[in-house]
Amino acid sequence: MPIIYLNGSFMPREEAKLSIDDRGFIFGDGVYEVTRVVNGELFESGRHLTRLSRGLADIRLDPVESLADIEDISRRLIADNALGEGEGTIYLQITRGAAPRTHHFPPADTRCTVFLSAAKFTVPHDKRATGVSVVTYPDIRWSRCDIKTVNLIPAVLAKQFAVDHGVFESIFVRGSAVMEGSHTNCFGVLDGELRTYPSSNYILGGVTRDVVIELAKELGVPVAERAFHVADIPRLEEFFVTGTTTDVMPVVEIDGKPVGSGTPGPITRRLYEALAARLYARVPAGR
Amino acid sequence: MPIIYLNGSFMPREEAKLSIDDRGFIFGDGVYEVTRVVNGELFESGRHLTRLSRGLADIRLDPVESLADIEDISRRLIADNALGEGEGTIYLQITRGAAPRTHHFPPADTRCTVFLSAAKFTVPHDKRATGVSVVTYPDIRWSRCDIKTVNLIPAVLAKQFAVDHGVFESIFVRGSAVMEGSHTNCFGVLDGELRTYPSSNYILGGVTRDVVIELAKELGVPVAERAFHVADIPRLEEFFVTGTTTDVMPVVEIDGKPVGSGTPGPITRRLYEALAARLYARVPAGR
Repeated sequence: MPIIYLNGSFMPREEAKLSIDDRGFIFGDGVYEVTRVVNGELFESGRHLTRLSRGLADIRLDPVESLADIEDISRRLIADNALGEGEGTIYLQITRGAAPRTHHFPPADTRCTVFLSAAKFTVPHDKRATGVSVVTYPDIRWSRCDIKTVNLIPAVLAKQFAVDHGVFESIFVRGSAVMEGSHTNCFGVLDGELRTYPSSNYILGGVTRDVVIELAKELGVPVAERAFHVADIPRLEEFFVTGTTTDVMPVVEIDGKPVGSGTPGPITRRLYEALAARLYARVPAGR
Repeated sequence: MPIIYLNGSFMPREEAKLSIDDRGFIFGDGVYEVTRVVNGELFESGRHLTRLSRGLADIRLDPVESLADIEDISRRLIADNALGEGEGTIYLQITRGAAPRTHHFPPADTRCTVFLSAAKFTVPHDKRATGVSVVTYPDIRWSRCDIKTVNLIPAVLAKQFAVDHGVFESIFVRGSAVMEGSHTNCFGVLDGELRTYPSSNYILGGVTRDVVIELAKELGVPVAERAFHVADIPRLEEFFVTGTTTDVMPVVEIDGKPVGSGTPGPITRRLYEALAARLYARVPAGR
């Protein structure tokens, strides 16, 4: 049975129960992270913790657990859930705790809720080989998409829209700009240049997105944090989405129309291979 | 000890526990209502249930409980929590249930979570006598503010901003338009006309707001669902906020500057009295 961490204790997942007054439940008043685990090692843990720390500050939530505690808890969950080999994820969520319902913050002595769990994860190699399809979806979200909160109804509705259309992901479009996916960032290749919406309050600054930008620079691929638009879609040479469990995923169809040649492109493939080399630095990917 | 309703059972509040996998906690994937109870009677229950029903449809959540069940559960909570006399509220929340985390909807047989509680409530008569102060706050919310979801972080941050400034409420401003409060609607009197932002996807269509518009028409007060703007604030003759626990609350100061004469205005007072006459139709308000 999976072991999770909740508010200072490790316990079987089924025994983990929340107060009905948890502000996570009542207001979605919390932030989360999903970190990749490869052969027992946390991937880019520092970047996840930096983002978490910034998000907590943005919503003015000051947890008891330090960031170092969170790494220790994560490592124990990796051990207790037999994730020392193969692929997995650590899910982390911190909310403002349980207190009588008031919109404003609860009393200062309210203990925040800290939840971490670990799970095995199957890398979607088949999908990566063929590439996936996506659909566009109006970006109905708030203007602080850079904070990784659990206020996720727009992402839920967008992803369900993708499922309804039998495709992998929905891509948010704000006005005419191509922003990001429901739980991924996105990149296009236009005139040989790799482009993605700029880091700002309108997108979530993905850890994999940042790594891919770094890798592109290392590989000598021209890369720009500059928006592209719906009108540019027919001209895209390549398109892909990125994420902690998505890695670099080639997109071969947008709204039913092929991207470029309709097969995964060469820049996409090089970037995935470079990312895989980092992910599997200790152990060969094919193992 | 308070008795609450959770997923088919009535139980003491402390015994009510949620699964850590509840989509209310993980995604804020649910809607809620707060209904006023006066001397054991639900106030405007029909309007609350109509809005609930519309919100459930908007997020595509189909609960097992019928709207009639919800009224029956509410009445039993009123009895079990001794709310047959005086003032109270019923809180209702429905989420998409507990299931392994996926952004898209869970399997069709996932039972949604239905939670109702009842509480006594103290009417803020003192504040109403003097009027309250408010501050403006940038409207950072999504573009479906008409759905009463528990994705409430913007409301939490806005209300906390009000608390930090020692005032009653924050008023969202989108671009230059005055929208509504963090948990209230708002009305201004300009050139003798009562104005409020139009029903649309950008505001929550409050039950009290709708009743107040009706009452204004009955009283012969000119009323228009038409936006007014930050630049109009210095010219406001009166300003007030409305809500299920706020009723009609005069605002005498916005961002530190007096509204009109700096005391509760005559149209505000007449509308509160007309609302009170409805609220306390069965029993005199002064009782």
